[in-house]
Amino acid sequence: MTLNAVPQSMHFDAPLALQSGASMAGYDLAYETYGRLNADRSNAVLVCHALNASHHVAGVYEGQPGSEGWWDTMIGPGKPLDTERFFVIGVNNLGSCFGSTGPMHANPATGRPWGADFPVVTVEDWVDAQARLLDALGIASLAAVMGGSLGGMQALSWTLQYPRRVRHAAVIASAPNLTAENIAFNEVARRAIVTDPDFHGGHFYRHGVVPKRGLRIARMIGHITYLSDDVMNEKFGRQLRDGIDLRYTTQDIEFQIESYLRYQGDKFSEYFDANTYLLITRALDYFDPARAHGGSLAKALATATADFLLVSFTTDWRFPPARSREIAKALLDNRRRVSYAEIDAPHGHDAFLLEDARYLAVVRAYFDRIAAEFSA
Amino acid sequence: MTLNAVPQSMHFDAPLALQSGASMAGYDLAYETYGRLNADRSNAVLVCHALNASHHVAGVYEGQPGSEGWWDTMIGPGKPLDTERFFVIGVNNLGSCFGSTGPMHANPATGRPWGADFPVVTVEDWVDAQARLLDALGIASLAAVMGGSLGGMQALSWTLQYPRRVRHAAVIASAPNLTAENIAFNEVARRAIVTDPDFHGGHFYRHGVVPKRGLRIARMIGHITYLSDDVMNEKFGRQLRDGIDLRYTTQDIEFQIESYLRYQGDKFSEYFDANTYLLITRALDYFDPARAHGGSLAKALATATADFLLVSFTTDWRFPPARSREIAKALLDNRRRVSYAEIDAPHGHDAFLLEDARYLAVVRAYFDRIAAEFSA
Repeated sequence: MTLNAVPQSMHFDAPLALQSGASMAGYDLAYETYGRLNADRSNAVLVCHALNASHHVAGVYEGQPGSEGWWDTMIGPGKPLDTERFFVIGVNNLGSCFGSTGPMHANPATGRPWGADFPVVTVEDWVDAQARLLDALGIASLAAVMGGSLGGMQALSWTLQYPRRVRHAAVIASAPNLTAENIAFNEVARRAIVTDPDFHGGHFYRHGVVPKRGLRIARMIGHITYLSDDVMNEKFGRQLRDGIDLRYTTQDIEFQIESYLRYQGDKFSEYFDANTYLLITRALDYFDPARAHGGSLAKALATATADFLLVSFTTDWRFPPARSREIAKALLDNRRRVSYAEIDAPHGHDAFLLEDARYLAVVRAYFDRIAAEFSA
Repeated sequence: MTLNAVPQSMHFDAPLALQSGASMAGYDLAYETYGRLNADRSNAVLVCHALNASHHVAGVYEGQPGSEGWWDTMIGPGKPLDTERFFVIGVNNLGSCFGSTGPMHANPATGRPWGADFPVVTVEDWVDAQARLLDALGIASLAAVMGGSLGGMQALSWTLQYPRRVRHAAVIASAPNLTAENIAFNEVARRAIVTDPDFHGGHFYRHGVVPKRGLRIARMIGHITYLSDDVMNEKFGRQLRDGIDLRYTTQDIEFQIESYLRYQGDKFSEYFDANTYLLITRALDYFDPARAHGGSLAKALATATADFLLVSFTTDWRFPPARSREIAKALLDNRRRVSYAEIDAPHGHDAFLLEDARYLAVVRAYFDRIAAEFSA
C-alpha cells in the first residue's frame, strides 16, 4: 500500500525565545502527517530529523516516483511505526533548508536573506518549536517521540523539556553529547565552508554563488564518519575505477572510494544550504543536557518520566554503543524503564536509516507495546 | 649529551627510473647521519620518514634550541636506537619539501618550478633512491631499516626490493596497505587543497600565493586521524575556550578542540608544500605489495629474508593493531622471525612519535639484540 505524503506548512506569529537570548518571530514550519489522530488524541508520534533530512519522513509525493521519505523503511502502513495505528508527524527544523524558515529566507529586519545572521538555534529551541506545532495541531501529549542521531538528541531533550507530554522516547544511534572528536569533525567541515571564497561571510545569496567547494568537503568528511571501515572495505576496498592499473596521478579519481565520495559531495552541494550546515552542526556541538548539572547525566535525566527505547549499532563509530549505554545507565540510575538493543550491523552510523531485520523487529516490538497501551 | 645534527645533501646525476614509467634525473637528497660507521660497515640503520617529517631525525642544530629531530626520543646517544653503537641515516624523500628535490624546485625542462608536474613517486621509488644514497655512502648492507607509519611501509618495502641488503626491519604503527577509509581521508584532504582557488592547478608558485585554506583543512583532518578519541577527550573534552558559557556562534572558536585544530592547520599551512601533500598521500594510497600477488600478502612477503620487529598501538585507529597482525601473520606463514609488540597507549597513531616507556623498552631490547649480532 502506498502512503501518499502531502507537505504542509504552519505559520507562527508569536516570537519564539531562543536559548541564545535572541528571539524568532514570524516563522514557518514545514511538516507532514501520516495516519489519523485517534478520538482521544493519544496515538501521536513525533519523528525528529538529523542533519540532512526533513519533515518528509515517510511515503511518496503523488506522481513523483523515488520520492520516498527518509525513514520510509521504518514508518508507513504495516511498518514498525505503523501509520495504520499511529498518527505520525514529521517537522522540518528551524534553520534547515527544506521548507521551514531558514537562512535563505528574508530577515524581516532587512528584507534580505538572513544568511549568517540567522539566529543560532539549539536542540532545545527545535523542541520548543515542535511543541508549538503540536499545540497548533491540538496534540497535548505524544505517545512517543522518536529520532536517530541528532534526531535522537531531540527525542531525549523532549523528555526533559516537556516530560508530561511524552510517554515514550525512542532514541536511536544517538549520544548524550558530542565527544571532542565529533566536534573536531564538525569544525573541519565548517572551516571548509567558511573559508570557501564563495561563502562571502555567509551572505553568498546576494552574490549569486554557492560555496560548493566547502559543502563538498563537508559532505565528504561527513560520509566517512557515517560509514564503518568494514562496510567501506566491503563496498569499495582498494578497487580501482579503471580496472587493474594504477595511473600515477594525484588529482584524478583512481580508487572507487574516491569516485563515491566526490559524487556524494557534488550531489550534496547542489541542494544543501551552507548556513544551515553551520547551524545544524553547531546545534550538535552544543547539545549537552548534563552541562547544567555539573556534567552528571544521571542528574540531568532525573526529571524525565518517559519510558525509553535506546538502539545502537556495533559498527557506529560516530555514536558508538558506549554512548547509548551512558544514556541507559543514567536512566537506570533514576529507576526509569529502559529497553536497550545493540544491533550487530556492519553499516556504521548509517545503519539507523537502513533496512535491517533485527533492528526493525526491535522497533516494531516496542511500538506494538505502545499501541497496546492506548488500545487497551 | 647533546647530539649535534648537520644537514647534508647528495646530488645524483644518473636518472632514477620511477614506477610510473617516468624518470627523474639530476636530483638531490637531503640527509643526516649520526654516530660512526664501524670498520666492517655493519652497523648502519636507515630511518624512513612519514608524511610531515624529514631527514632531521635526531639531535639538534647547533645554536638552534628546540630544533630536536622528529624521532629524538628514540634515536641518540644512549637512546633505544643508540648512536653510540649504530650509524644512523635519515633521508628526506624525493618530492618532499624539506631539502630533497621536490615540486617547488625547478623542472630542468622548463626552468620553472615543477609544481603539479613533479613525477608521481611511490614508496618503491623512495626505497630505490635511498638505496642509491647508501651506495654513495659505501653501505652495502643495513643492520636495520626502521620507520613508523608511511616510514614503516618503506621499511617493509626495503625487505622486498633489497632483501640482501637488510638484516632487520622495524615496522612501527604501520600497515600493509591503506583501507578504503584511509584512502577516503586522503582524498578529502587532497580535494580541499586542489579546489582551493589559490592552488592554480598546482602552479601557485608563479602566482606568488599558497593554497593555505586547503592545507589547513588537510592538516585538521590529518590531526583528527592521528589522535585517539580517548586522548582528545582527555586533552580537550568539551571544554570551552572562554570558560563556562556558550556564545552561540557558528564561526567563532568556542571549544578548545577547535582552537587546537585551527592552530595546527595554520602552523602547517605556513611551511608545508601543497604539491608535496598530494604526492605523499598518493604514495600512501598506492602502497600495496600484495597487489602483484593476487592480494596475498603472504605471497608478497615470501622473498623477504629480514627479521622483523613490528609494533602497534592499541588506540591507533588509522593503522590499528590488526593491520600489524596482518603483516606478522604473512611473515609467519613464510617462517620468518618476527617480534611483535602491541603497546597499550592512549595516544592513537601519534603514539609512535611519543615517549612511552614500554614502547621505547621494546625497541631498545630489539636493537640490543641487533648490536649483539655485529659486536659478537
